[in-house]
Amino acid sequence: MRAITLTEHGGPEVLGLGEAPTPTARPGHVVVRVHTAGVNRADVLQRQGHYTPPPGANTEVEIPGLEASGWIHEVGEQVTGWAEGDRVAALLTEGGYAEYVEVPAGQLLAVPEELSLEDAAALPEVLCTVQSNVFAAGALRPGEWLLVHGGGSGIGTAAIQMAKAQSAKVAVTVGSERKAEFCRELGADAVINYREEDFVERIREITSTGEGPGDGADVILDVMGAKYLDRNLRALAVDGRLVIIGLQGGTKAEANLGRMLPRRLSVIATTLRARPAEQKARIVAEVADTFWKQAAEGRIRAVVDTVFPLAEASSAHARMEAGENIGKLLLRVAED
Amino acid sequence: MRAITLTEHGGPEVLGLGEAPTPTARPGHVVVRVHTAGVNRADVLQRQGHYTPPPGANTEVEIPGLEASGWIHEVGEQVTGWAEGDRVAALLTEGGYAEYVEVPAGQLLAVPEELSLEDAAALPEVLCTVQSNVFAAGALRPGEWLLVHGGGSGIGTAAIQMAKAQSAKVAVTVGSERKAEFCRELGADAVINYREEDFVERIREITSTGEGPGDGADVILDVMGAKYLDRNLRALAVDGRLVIIGLQGGTKAEANLGRMLPRRLSVIATTLRARPAEQKARIVAEVADTFWKQAAEGRIRAVVDTVFPLAEASSAHARMEAGENIGKLLLRVAED
Repeated sequence: MRAITLTEHGGPEVLGLGEAPTPTARPGHVVVRVHTAGVNRADVLQRQGHYTPPPGANTEVEIPGLEASGWIHEVGEQVTGWAEGDRVAALLTEGGYAEYVEVPAGQLLAVPEELSLEDAAALPEVLCTVQSNVFAAGALRPGEWLLVHGGGSGIGTAAIQMAKAQSAKVAVTVGSERKAEFCRELGADAVINYREEDFVERIREITSTGEGPGDGADVILDVMGAKYLDRNLRALAVDGRLVIIGLQGGTKAEANLGRMLPRRLSVIATTLRARPAEQKARIVAEVADTFWKQAAEGRIRAVVDTVFPLAEASSAHARMEAGENIGKLLLRVAED
Repeated sequence: MRAITLTEHGGPEVLGLGEAPTPTARPGHVVVRVHTAGVNRADVLQRQGHYTPPPGANTEVEIPGLEASGWIHEVGEQVTGWAEGDRVAALLTEGGYAEYVEVPAGQLLAVPEELSLEDAAALPEVLCTVQSNVFAAGALRPGEWLLVHGGGSGIGTAAIQMAKAQSAKVAVTVGSERKAEFCRELGADAVINYREEDFVERIREITSTGEGPGDGADVILDVMGAKYLDRNLRALAVDGRLVIIGLQGGTKAEANLGRMLPRRLSVIATTLRARPAEQKARIVAEVADTFWKQAAEGRIRAVVDTVFPLAEASSAHARMEAGENIGKLLLRVAED
């Protein structure tokens, strides 16, 4: 089959189209014929050589890609409830940038008529990431304030809609007026341009209930890590939770426990990609019952920036690295 | 009434017996005639001037004391289910080192016949601290490993018994062979002498399931803060939770997020004392239904080191600061 195979690490140009063995379905797995694959920040890190393959990954041929949509091509033993030809989307362990990909059956989502396969490919990673980090780990409750760094990203555009669907209030940081405007249209209650404003000061103003500064955000979803650690802790309300899912701003920072303890703050560092299959299956099941249905009903919409042909994966990576995209970058593998 | 009033901050000698107005019960509160008051590390910090009074504290006369047992003396308006003369223990906002103390009704625990008022005074803080931090925030589950720093402390001796009662496995650090022996007798699965051994290396050995080093503790209950932060993170298993409830080893430390993220580690910094009354009431209700019943049945026992007369509160503080106690230090205020 055709696939983007990683034979060396480096810049976007290493993403060349090659040949790889077509996978077959082991027990508990299915093989999906891919319609569209999603591009994620983790793929960029993998391409640069910063990731070791997660548990269960194929170590012979390295194919990036953590989500895809398509049709079930083969059903492995011990799999029930799925049949050849079913329209599906999947949270993958790896391998989405290809014509076929094998996936544990627990990581499949059924794609209903109302949802296009293109949109379906844009949703598994963002819905599962926000569900597992903002709602499960961060325990965001109705009426609370969520602050999301990078409101224009795939995760940001999903988090805005998901928080509003759960009756929470959401503020985002963005780096341009174009992204700010888009986030407002998606439903963000407040938008902070981090190039022009101090987000700690702004979140206090935003969360104010009328008399002086407010207490800050109840949950922060962060991808900057070290660079923002101290500011994020200062931007949290009492009983606040900082969920770190990316380290784009470095790994080591001074933590002020003297600020955290009296205000009862939590720091949760986590990543979806490295979770074992049983945790991914649990998260997918949670999403299937909630946000996936809302996406099928059109209440949460896939925000797609650009769809590239599979062979142009390098262009998609370059666009993500330049921070130009609003919403998801996708790779078209097969036509409807 | 007689009370230990804090008129200045400093060493144990500032804890002199004085006079204070006898409290009356506001709506939603009761006044307890104190039999025995518990001494806590937070009282030492308050005496040293490191704490600001928590929300709801009396700011005219500062009386330490976060737990006590005794008899209900007066029942305020809007309080149901409690009557004058009832034997009770209470998680207090302040004021336990006195003949009478006012307490929100939600922070009361009924003391059954089988439990002495002395033992009852030793339990509210430790049971509520371990319930809220190890079981609620830390989410310790049956079969998981808990590591407790300071196994010989009041909290340590309670945590050992509570973890075992919930079918978890528990390792503790201690600073002497006398404390090590005591913790083993209480049921600790493993004891680490931190003066002689590296607790990171030891917890890996302890949690091994046979082939090489184990993955570490699932939950760590820590009172050292900055001094232990990096070592605690290295001692945690994948998906591990570090709960910091004291900062005896300082407040600022470098956090290695690059270690935390791929292993999905959480750092939860919190304190029982500063929680608002509604949170304390929730925690007390959780304890009443679980560990308090086990204490009444003798399955969890109060570990009392020494009972001092109220007037000798300074001696109790000096003993705590010297780290000589195994289990709780108490102050006797009235006889049975």
